[in-house]
Amino acid sequence: MTHKDKRVNVYLEELASSSATPGGGSATALAGAMGAGLVSMACRLTVGRKRFADVEDELQGVLDEAEALRLRLTDLADADSQAFDQVMAAYRLPKETPAQQTARHTAIQSALQGATQVPLETALACGAVVRLAAQVIEKINPNALGDAGAAALLAEAGLKGAQLNVAINLAGINDPIFVQQANEELHTVLCGIDKDKERVFAVVSGHV
Amino acid sequence: MTHKDKRVNVYLEELASSSATPGGGSATALAGAMGAGLVSMACRLTVGRKRFADVEDELQGVLDEAEALRLRLTDLADADSQAFDQVMAAYRLPKETPAQQTARHTAIQSALQGATQVPLETALACGAVVRLAAQVIEKINPNALGDAGAAALLAEAGLKGAQLNVAINLAGINDPIFVQQANEELHTVLCGIDKDKERVFAVVSGHV
Repeated sequence: MTHKDKRVNVYLEELASSSATPGGGSATALAGAMGAGLVSMACRLTVGRKRFADVEDELQGVLDEAEALRLRLTDLADADSQAFDQVMAAYRLPKETPAQQTARHTAIQSALQGATQVPLETALACGAVVRLAAQVIEKINPNALGDAGAAALLAEAGLKGAQLNVAINLAGINDPIFVQQANEELHTVLCGIDKDKERVFAVVSGHV
Repeated sequence: MTHKDKRVNVYLEELASSSATPGGGSATALAGAMGAGLVSMACRLTVGRKRFADVEDELQGVLDEAEALRLRLTDLADADSQAFDQVMAAYRLPKETPAQQTARHTAIQSALQGATQVPLETALACGAVVRLAAQVIEKINPNALGDAGAAALLAEAGLKGAQLNVAINLAGINDPIFVQQANEELHTVLCGIDKDKERVFAVVSGHV
């Protein structure tokens, strides 16, 4: 069963269990999905209301993006567990003969690259959620400011958790070009994210 | 149906909907619950293994605390929605006669105090999760360092989100003693939390 089809309760119990999946990677993706959901909520509490008519089109566009990110991050929570299971499976391959050792090494490297790709995509999607929150924070229904603030916090935690998982996986990867490209992608995601989050909080604090 | 009995998917859809609950308060409590679950996971990947025998008792104690916090935060995700629904109900009370206005004012103030208590408890529990992560970070199975790092990030986001919701509710409360006590409680929770989080990250980064 996919994580998204489990009851919240059951997912949390599995997270707390000694089973390797779901783990931190899956939970950070779900934190990002909650962040995206809260951006959607803030947009939906704004669109279709006369006094916000001038931002209607922009917020409808942001809502569509946030919904796509929510679904993407929900899927990434499952993809992370699958990718990690493949890493574990590769480590369990036989390593008695030189041929087996070579095959195992190749399988581990390939699985680690797969397991790096998932948190990279999670980081990318979480970064996009923080950016959307910053884009709309001055335009949304003020009743939803707390929700938009929580959105930015959860997506930021998702981003930093994903960044951590990228670093942990990269530490085991031998291909220097893959490592460099992954680090460059991550750098692009992180660029400007602190400013975006500060912008969200300056507006939210101004209304409290 | 309680949030914890819903499928992850359904909860996220409801979060993204224009319905006022679940909202940011519920999502931040669930982020804290995921953080607590990841502390439990890190402890369970450590206890019962010979090479970690010297920290067995301490980690078993932390595991028990983390599990209690996980269940508490899961319940707070529901309590937040209920408390917010009561605020909304109080605002909808009739306000035509002076007697109705007085009754409505009293109901709103009482509901706002209830709606402040929930994020205060969420902040307290999330702060406890960050502290547990800091307590065990140098003692757990190194395989679980990424999970413990994610735990600290998610619980910190939960704490800050809860802090935001406390501030938003306090802004509407007239009783200065209640406001002061709530702010003092929050101050106690926040004290030392940044150092605890930095400690977690110094150890995790040292292993990457």
